Amino acid sequence: MKIGLIGTGWIGEEHVKRLSGTVSGAEVAAVSDIDPERAEAVAGAAGARVVDSAEKLIEDAEVEAVVVTSWGPAHAEQVLACIAAGKPVFCEKPLTTEAADGLRILEAEQAHGKRLVQVGFMRRYDAGYRQMKAVLDAGGIGAPLMAHCVHRNPDSPESYHSDKPMVDTAVHEVDALRWLLGEEFATAQVVVPRSTSNRYPHLVDPQILLLETASGARVDVEVFVNCRYGYDIQCEIVGETGTVRLPDPAAPVVRSGGRASFAVVQDFPSRFADAFDVELQEWVDSLHTGEPAGPSAWDGYAATVVTNAAVKARRTGAVVPVDLPERPAFYR
Amino acid sequence: MKIGLIGTGWIGEEHVKRLSGTVSGAEVAAVSDIDPERAEAVAGAAGARVVDSAEKLIEDAEVEAVVVTSWGPAHAEQVLACIAAGKPVFCEKPLTTEAADGLRILEAEQAHGKRLVQVGFMRRYDAGYRQMKAVLDAGGIGAPLMAHCVHRNPDSPESYHSDKPMVDTAVHEVDALRWLLGEEFATAQVVVPRSTSNRYPHLVDPQILLLETASGARVDVEVFVNCRYGYDIQCEIVGETGTVRLPDPAAPVVRSGGRASFAVVQDFPSRFADAFDVELQEWVDSLHTGEPAGPSAWDGYAATVVTNAAVKARRTGAVVPVDLPERPAFYR
Amino acid sequence: MKIGLIGTGWIGEEHVKRLSGTVSGAEVAAVSDIDPERAEAVAGAAGARVVDSAEKLIEDAEVEAVVVTSWGPAHAEQVLACIAAGKPVFCEKPLTTEAADGLRILEAEQAHGKRLVQVGFMRRYDAGYRQMKAVLDAGGIGAPLMAHCVHRNPDSPESYHSDKPMVDTAVHEVDALRWLLGEEFATAQVVVPRSTSNRYPHLVDPQILLLETASGARVDVEVFVNCRYGYDIQCEIVGETGTVRLPDPAAPVVRSGGRASFAVVQDFPSRFADAFDVELQEWVDSLHTGEPAGPSAWDGYAATVVTNAAVKARRTGAVVPVDLPERPAFYR
Amino acid sequence: MKIGLIGTGWIGEEHVKRLSGTVSGAEVAAVSDIDPERAEAVAGAAGARVVDSAEKLIEDAEVEAVVVTSWGPAHAEQVLACIAAGKPVFCEKPLTTEAADGLRILEAEQAHGKRLVQVGFMRRYDAGYRQMKAVLDAGGIGAPLMAHCVHRNPDSPESYHSDKPMVDTAVHEVDALRWLLGEEFATAQVVVPRSTSNRYPHLVDPQILLLETASGARVDVEVFVNCRYGYDIQCEIVGETGTVRLPDPAAPVVRSGGRASFAVVQDFPSRFADAFDVELQEWVDSLHTGEPAGPSAWDGYAATVVTNAAVKARRTGAVVPVDLPERPAFYR
Repeated sequence: MKIGLIGTGWIGEEHVKRLSGTVSGAEVAAVSDIDPERAEAVAGAAGARVVDSAEKLIEDAEVEAVVVTSWGPAHAEQVLACIAAGKPVFCEKPLTTEAADGLRILEAEQAHGKRLVQVGFMRRYDAGYRQMKAVLDAGGIGAPLMAHCVHRNPDSPESYHSDKPMVDTAVHEVDALRWLLGEEFATAQVVVPRSTSNRYPHLVDPQILLLETASGARVDVEVFVNCRYGYDIQCEIVGETGTVRLPDPAAPVVRSGGRASFAVVQDFPSRFADAFDVELQEWVDSLHTGEPAGPSAWDGYAATVVTNAAVKARRTGAVVPVDLPERPAFYR
Repeated sequence: MKIGLIGTGWIGEEHVKRLSGTVSGAEVAAVSDIDPERAEAVAGAAGARVVDSAEKLIEDAEVEAVVVTSWGPAHAEQVLACIAAGKPVFCEKPLTTEAADGLRILEAEQAHGKRLVQVGFMRRYDAGYRQMKAVLDAGGIGAPLMAHCVHRNPDSPESYHSDKPMVDTAVHEVDALRWLLGEEFATAQVVVPRSTSNRYPHLVDPQILLLETASGARVDVEVFVNCRYGYDIQCEIVGETGTVRLPDPAAPVVRSGGRASFAVVQDFPSRFADAFDVELQEWVDSLHTGEPAGPSAWDGYAATVVTNAAVKARRTGAVVPVDLPERPAFYR
Repeated sequence: MKIGLIGTGWIGEEHVKRLSGTVSGAEVAAVSDIDPERAEAVAGAAGARVVDSAEKLIEDAEVEAVVVTSWGPAHAEQVLACIAAGKPVFCEKPLTTEAADGLRILEAEQAHGKRLVQVGFMRRYDAGYRQMKAVLDAGGIGAPLMAHCVHRNPDSPESYHSDKPMVDTAVHEVDALRWLLGEEFATAQVVVPRSTSNRYPHLVDPQILLLETASGARVDVEVFVNCRYGYDIQCEIVGETGTVRLPDPAAPVVRSGGRASFAVVQDFPSRFADAFDVELQEWVDSLHTGEPAGPSAWDGYAATVVTNAAVKARRTGAVVPVDLPERPAFYR
Repeated sequence: MKIGLIGTGWIGEEHVKRLSGTVSGAEVAAVSDIDPERAEAVAGAAGARVVDSAEKLIEDAEVEAVVVTSWGPAHAEQVLACIAAGKPVFCEKPLTTEAADGLRILEAEQAHGKRLVQVGFMRRYDAGYRQMKAVLDAGGIGAPLMAHCVHRNPDSPESYHSDKPMVDTAVHEVDALRWLLGEEFATAQVVVPRSTSNRYPHLVDPQILLLETASGARVDVEVFVNCRYGYDIQCEIVGETGTVRLPDPAAPVVRSGGRASFAVVQDFPSRFADAFDVELQEWVDSLHTGEPAGPSAWDGYAATVVTNAAVKARRTGAVVPVDLPERPAFYR
């Protein structure tokens, strides 16, 4: 399967490497980037051509499917162009930065009549999350009532501003919990602790997102992007008869110098390396056999609506309703 | 040291057993209870006399120190009587059910001029909590920003109504976190998930208490008293450079039938058995050597003010301020 | 890279699936098996041709590299034929069942002048083992003195006889520990506990292998192939200043019914699925870029010499020397 | 209960503190030591008299029960004197250094007609070991086949010579496993790894003890007394259907600086503090109510026979039989 990739930044380069070096049944035929040198460098290593715009790449006759890893604001038009071209598209999160753009994608895809879009919520491919979902689906903890989540990064760049903890970071928990709990969120609130001294002064960090689902289950998500000690993802779901907790990644325990310890991973590419592998392999497999089975345009849209509500909640201090239209039958 | 104990209910009987059978340097000289038969049964096993009222027990010439394990509403008058008699008194939590009664105790004790009152917040004597505090005090995680707490019971009796998750249950976290963080709480909010189906219909369960300290640190406490699977206390404190988590009680791991597992304790007397031992031993030791070093009347009062605010917060849905007067120098 | 595979039994079929469906840069061109129907079935799913003998497959012009997954006694001649044909060969363990055959392979490969053979010791590709090795190599526990290993299977088939715990099972620990400790074994002893009642009567199970390295480090390996509860691999290495322990595979912890538990994997394909993926990907990558970097014919030979000594040790009750010639410079 | 204690060295002083400050129902009436100044210091803190010889202490009219914490070679005569005086005696391990002396104690106690002797194997009072025994006794892992034990100290003094790893250190595992498995040992072998460089040159360290029980179960015990990183006791018992493992002591997990870690205890008094408390409390309780229920003179004798066989095994390299007479009915 010949893939074209738009946006050869960090995550784009990772996906090119995966598609050309790890994933079976795919090769990267063409890449494009607003920075042609960057595009050349990434293309060269994978034996791909450089195409000089996203539009041309999407229309390129050799390109059978597209991966969108450009910056967020560009996603909407590129995904819409893929739909217009009738080509499957894997779009990194967020699907769109504006909810209204997400609606346009939903409409275009429904008009096309068949799913073409998959959104890059890689946690659904993580072995730990999948095992948690299996426990939930088997009734292993009864009906879920609460979830406690933690999303910590060791540090954040200066460009990372106070909306991003919701829009860029908590968005992963928003999607993962929608998927795990099997329902939509209804309200959002953000609680703001005293900020850490280890941050750029413009940033409000940490933030705690409080979500309520349609049925009244409650989810809290601590987002702390300057925790210093590592990249740490935790999730405990509490049901009527039990709980299930996402495991730490397996790591050898060393006993030395009076302590027993294991290494905490330091970044999300290490933490979710296997999940990215599985995600792209399953996506490529789906190209051969039918529609994508992964997170849909609806999932991407719903996550954006929730994180936008969260941003408003932090700014206002209020409990903000999540204004989500009814889910179209097409996406059920 | 000859102890008199008022209230030979469940916790009273436990304390009689500890004081007469495990704690060094103490014996139970006298007990009283509103149910004389119950008092006789407990007294007999410990070789103690039965005295026919709390008042007489407090005035009893042989009684050198008093343990109050009567029901909550009776605490205030009994503790005040002990102070009036100049006798040290260990009072089970809550010190008082009404904050106003707590103020009367604070005034009486200050008028007496020397600490006489200790409140039964046993978690301060738990090895795990003490080790957490040592980590915090040594700067092991930097300045604390957040704490995530869980307090679960397998089930609750019919008499347990919807204020109790705050007043009787979360009160332990309120005290433990005041102690761990070294500051008072400023506001309380309660978030209410969909209730479990495994409860008496009159009970709102679970409830999530959200607290803010004077400096802006945030504490959340899940209280879930019908979780079915066990008695489970969790606490993670998040600081500017790291985190520290209360350990599960040590238990052998059994591998059998496809799973590796350990037993979860089923009740608080098992979970905090060692803490109760240490608490009473240290209290008895303090009787020999000077003033009690444990949780003070102020600690008991402050916890009541916070949990009363939490009750109001749940009933109103609002963020409720914790109206605490300035801490008297006497209690610093 | 076009691969030919000999032997479409269970592990052969797994490797065909990996090479055609998960590994990047490879396809299975041809397979052979002594059972033609079995070969057809496996070939069909992968779009490969069936060749009617191992010899023809090795000589097949389209086949660029060979995977040997036939039964053990056939390995030697097939690997020798690959060397004669100058084709890279990945041979499942054991490289040979007889040590003398291993010597013939070593000689043939040296005569060929370049490494062609890789042996399927997949544990060297397991993330946990690799992290342990990184700790060791970084001096994290000082010079190693001891290793304690456990290799448990839930059950064993009737054909599994009393030499197999050493030859088929402990052989993995023999290779892994040679690799981790970086030296050869010098002696072997086998201690035989009372056998479990859950076994075929002809089988001695469990068995404990005691190994001594050239420098005097000691390794013990419990092999218990009817432990009933799961497939469980444990390994703790003890150095002069610390220890390092192989982690259990990450799995969610469920709290329910009074216990906190996680699932123990039930078979080695699940336990080492990721290791198999990495092993074959790295092997295929090496075909493109040069000599195989994985376990060599020497490693395969040395492991066989050790496990043969272990068999003799169990039968005689004696401490048996491991008669290994000096390692040829070619294999250093 | 008025206790006399012989030998106010380190462990003697600990027991005086426990008996006078933590244990209920006991006080230390008298102590003796070959160093009178040392005896004075310890006695003073506990309000006890100093008696100027072990003999006089045993005969002292006020002394109702005796604790023997003198050095090992003195135990036999002191315990025999207690039996002659008809006084209960708690003797620290080893009961005797020579097996023949143990036989004399067994005979004297049987002649006395009632148990008077308890030996200080405190692990039987450790909560973790007790829970393991409960699992075993409930059939939770089926019939035991193997046990893997580890006994590590951070360092050892110069006086600690090469017999001591068996006689002073592994003796705890010998008793604990006799108790857990419910049978005697039949043979002993010692495997000697390359010694650590972190030791006094005269010491062989580590050593691995291999034991076989009467029924053929196998126990291995790594003894490593200069492991540097901490005091670490591990024990896994493997049964026909499962395994059970002694837990690490509960300790908070700190995440900081890229690692998640907990403190390893550094010495046995910390590791077994609770076990010592329970041991002495239960012993004192038994003085009030009847015969001691703890480890008997037979247990002390059997452990000495096993560790003496282990010493011989290390010196000779042979598998040495454990020559234990039949257990007298008196001790069943």
